[in-house]
Amino acid sequence: MNFLEEKIVKDGIVKEGNVLKVDSFLNHQMDIELFNQMGAEWKKRFAGKNINKILTIEASGIGIACIAAQHFGVPVVFAKKSKSINLEGEMYTAEVESFTHKNKNKVIVSKKFLNENDHVLLIDDFLANGCALQGLIQIVQSAGATVEGIGIAVEKGFQSGGKIIRNLGYQLESLAIVESMDWETGSITFREE
Amino acid sequence: MNFLEEKIVKDGIVKEGNVLKVDSFLNHQMDIELFNQMGAEWKKRFAGKNINKILTIEASGIGIACIAAQHFGVPVVFAKKSKSINLEGEMYTAEVESFTHKNKNKVIVSKKFLNENDHVLLIDDFLANGCALQGLIQIVQSAGATVEGIGIAVEKGFQSGGKIIRNLGYQLESLAIVESMDWETGSITFREE
Repeated sequence: MNFLEEKIVKDGIVKEGNVLKVDSFLNHQMDIELFNQMGAEWKKRFAGKNINKILTIEASGIGIACIAAQHFGVPVVFAKKSKSINLEGEMYTAEVESFTHKNKNKVIVSKKFLNENDHVLLIDDFLANGCALQGLIQIVQSAGATVEGIGIAVEKGFQSGGKIIRNLGYQLESLAIVESMDWETGSITFREE
Repeated sequence: MNFLEEKIVKDGIVKEGNVLKVDSFLNHQMDIELFNQMGAEWKKRFAGKNINKILTIEASGIGIACIAAQHFGVPVVFAKKSKSINLEGEMYTAEVESFTHKNKNKVIVSKKFLNENDHVLLIDDFLANGCALQGLIQIVQSAGATVEGIGIAVEKGFQSGGKIIRNLGYQLESLAIVESMDWETGSITFREE
């Protein structure tokens, strides 16, 4: 097990319905030293890639992306979730369905902060069905920019998102891929690398 | 002028209606090196304070809080905005009015991540009328925890938030306090320290 898998086993909580709660260190309370290790690991896995910007999505991707950005020496842009149509200025938009909240959000990024010269690393905390990530990819493509890679903290390997994204040819680096969970025993099985 | 005031003069945009756009470096695209300088400055201003946790509010406070947290060696908790009443588990809640969006949000923090032993530094990107901040203070008080200080990037000194918070006796450290703006000339006047 790597450092993130060990942390998940130690502090993650498995709940009924294939729910994995990691809110004590990843997406409500945030363990900054852990994020730093994650950033260092992505830097290693994306070595040699020409990355000049990190793109993430509010809210729980932002902290991870900012700490990771220090390892790449690049700025971060976060896509905003918005239900309003009254967008000031010119925006790239994509529609994203939330697995957790069962609703649709419009995701927006100002055209000022993404263009055809950008080589983008996408960062997010979770990958399940991949809807949020596909929204971010769509936004990068609308800008004529290049997705150089995708860094995810926790992937639910038993859902389709990871497979879809890898089949599209992207370098997807999930630091922990959960193959199965058992809420009655609390056990978690990770994909072998 | 300090480093943040210089950045605001260089890259901020003054718009009609006392609107200051800092989305190229603070709250949409994020300048991580700038955040690092802000963190170092707060560490200096809150020297000697016993701080074991940073509390912020989604979304644009999160990046600043995470980078600042590295200077204090503490975890970050971010309060979530939620319109849903169906809250899983036990939550501290406060109601917060948004100046920008003219709506009310419920702000929530899990009781697991804040208790009477916590000495909290509040961090946010903007302070105008102070509603978001008062929500965070209310949550810290509900937990029986202590507000050790408040770090703000940009305070609108011509609105009442800063005065209210200082009158309540809190150590409020805003790194740039805008006294006035003129959207026709683009000029910005800062409060002298």
